[in-house]
Amino acid sequence: MSRLVPPYIERLVPYVPGKPVEELERELGIKNALKLASNENPMGPSPRALEAIAKHLPETHRYPDAAAFRLRERLAAHHDIAMDEIIVGNGSNEIIDNLCRTFADATNHAVIGVPSFVYYKLGLIAANVPYTEVPLRDHLAWDVTALLAAVRPETSILFVAHPNNPTGAHVAKKDLERLMKELPERVVLVMDEAYVEFADAPDFVSALTMRNLRERLLVLRTFSKAYGLAAIRVGYGIGPRAVIDYLNRVRAPFNCNALAQVAAIAALSDHEHVSNYVKLNRTERARVTNALTKLGLKVGPSQANFVLVNFAKPGKEVYDSMLRLGVIIRPMPAPIDTWQRITIGLPEENDRLIAAVQQTLGA
Amino acid sequence: MSRLVPPYIERLVPYVPGKPVEELERELGIKNALKLASNENPMGPSPRALEAIAKHLPETHRYPDAAAFRLRERLAAHHDIAMDEIIVGNGSNEIIDNLCRTFADATNHAVIGVPSFVYYKLGLIAANVPYTEVPLRDHLAWDVTALLAAVRPETSILFVAHPNNPTGAHVAKKDLERLMKELPERVVLVMDEAYVEFADAPDFVSALTMRNLRERLLVLRTFSKAYGLAAIRVGYGIGPRAVIDYLNRVRAPFNCNALAQVAAIAALSDHEHVSNYVKLNRTERARVTNALTKLGLKVGPSQANFVLVNFAKPGKEVYDSMLRLGVIIRPMPAPIDTWQRITIGLPEENDRLIAAVQQTLGA
Repeated sequence: MSRLVPPYIERLVPYVPGKPVEELERELGIKNALKLASNENPMGPSPRALEAIAKHLPETHRYPDAAAFRLRERLAAHHDIAMDEIIVGNGSNEIIDNLCRTFADATNHAVIGVPSFVYYKLGLIAANVPYTEVPLRDHLAWDVTALLAAVRPETSILFVAHPNNPTGAHVAKKDLERLMKELPERVVLVMDEAYVEFADAPDFVSALTMRNLRERLLVLRTFSKAYGLAAIRVGYGIGPRAVIDYLNRVRAPFNCNALAQVAAIAALSDHEHVSNYVKLNRTERARVTNALTKLGLKVGPSQANFVLVNFAKPGKEVYDSMLRLGVIIRPMPAPIDTWQRITIGLPEENDRLIAAVQQTLGA
Repeated sequence: MSRLVPPYIERLVPYVPGKPVEELERELGIKNALKLASNENPMGPSPRALEAIAKHLPETHRYPDAAAFRLRERLAAHHDIAMDEIIVGNGSNEIIDNLCRTFADATNHAVIGVPSFVYYKLGLIAANVPYTEVPLRDHLAWDVTALLAAVRPETSILFVAHPNNPTGAHVAKKDLERLMKELPERVVLVMDEAYVEFADAPDFVSALTMRNLRERLLVLRTFSKAYGLAAIRVGYGIGPRAVIDYLNRVRAPFNCNALAQVAAIAALSDHEHVSNYVKLNRTERARVTNALTKLGLKVGPSQANFVLVNFAKPGKEVYDSMLRLGVIIRPMPAPIDTWQRITIGLPEENDRLIAAVQQTLGA
């Protein structure tokens, strides 16, 4: 039969469906598997968010508000910006995909880091946009000079995760200022701040504090990490009206489900829920980092709710050993395939993690 | 500043955010507005689905199963097909968008009907795919001969809504057979069966009964209509493995939220909930059709949970009059801008609708 898909779609790696955790437990004959693989809030969702969902349940037969009016209204107040500077997505994933489709095509070019959030690359391939991958320094730290050097006359989009996933690195304030100013004004700079709540370095600032430095800036935030609402998919982007308007043209009207909208509004007011988690994460991130370092492992400095750890062994070996001990962590692809990304959990979970690492290293 | 978006993105009409119903009520000084505009299940969501959501709430901090394993397992059993012949979407909207991106590009061509579901056109424009709009007979009925005649050597996708939104028309069995057989095998035929549960014409059959007639067939279904789960966004597509595999490459891993997955599984078992609604809709659709016909209006024959009604007056005038009477219906764009699409509601809601139409016509 004739060609089914364009050649760039053919280049996309088919998604291999993972089995549910309970399926994995059954196969391995383990119980209470500890999942430290997806950077979820180990303290659970905000109770206020769950109340808001429960209250909305009788309306489940109604379509969501296509404009996410109330949520954008609340976010606008929260950030002290205008409602039409905000786009809401089915997770920030969807906005990344939308950005690739809206601000670039095959005649453009994009710049991304490596290792960085894998979804930038997937979005660019699906939209047939050529891209350059700029290595992070020692696989860990953003290199603004190299990012700027990779920009071409046809570059229309540049993605920076800040802090970065999976390395935990941020862009220091003075480097961020330089990036904002030296990046040609035609390029849409996307600063993905999915982990911003966990950052506490003295030279960390959100890109939102530098909106005056350039027009084409889009800052991504999510409710999936600090806010503990990963299950229901809600992220958002903040940018100038022109950028948001174009993203809205490509966005599907009912992309953000109704329960996510009411939950996010409630979670945004639950300051204690987020601040308790941020405090816990700060303490435990330092403790896990110290413990793993003492075991002789290299741990990347992290501004997020996870650490990137070099086991200097094939990733699959380490991952499988940890899995047999009931701890699910995240193996990394080349060029960091001896590293594992490990989410910071509750104190008792981290104890279990550290013990499992010790056992894995002793094996 | 330089060009921000490719020219085809510029062609997309910006989405105008609608105000929430309660906002509308406040502005118009009305209460208990009756929404018959979105073809939602007027009996509400399945109680079993709500129970399943409530039970899953403590897991709201966890990402959804990226593969929708349990839901696809359940759907596979329901349709007696294989799990890998199913893709799950954030509503079927998302799958339509995915279809346009996956099976066509600027070198291809698509065929759609007019009037038909507007999202096919939006998906095609966003993916820069040229398309031909084939008029329905008298604006109401599918014309398979015309659809086939519009196919070009480069056509790679053809969308048919069955029953059609907004006309309610289906493709008669013998015409569907002809379409399946005569459409060149290279074309992906998309049969969007969002309203299939409501169809009861003697010559109506689901395209699923004709899967043996062609390889490249994708049937869309949704939980937003008969199943009453529009708020949480879950639709699915059934097709051959090769088609599903490519769609999965473009699909975002966490596209279908976790609450939607558990709710859909539960709703699928609640046969009574769906069959009660289908029965009610059948009786009330006939009653509303008769009543509006007696008022001198032309009502399209419908196989769905709505009727398309020609008021032979400017759409905005009728829409505004109905709105002042507290009834929200759906005005239609050209070429059917004197028609309104009206969802069949509960008996007392339909009484109120008929009275409001009478008042509007008398004005």
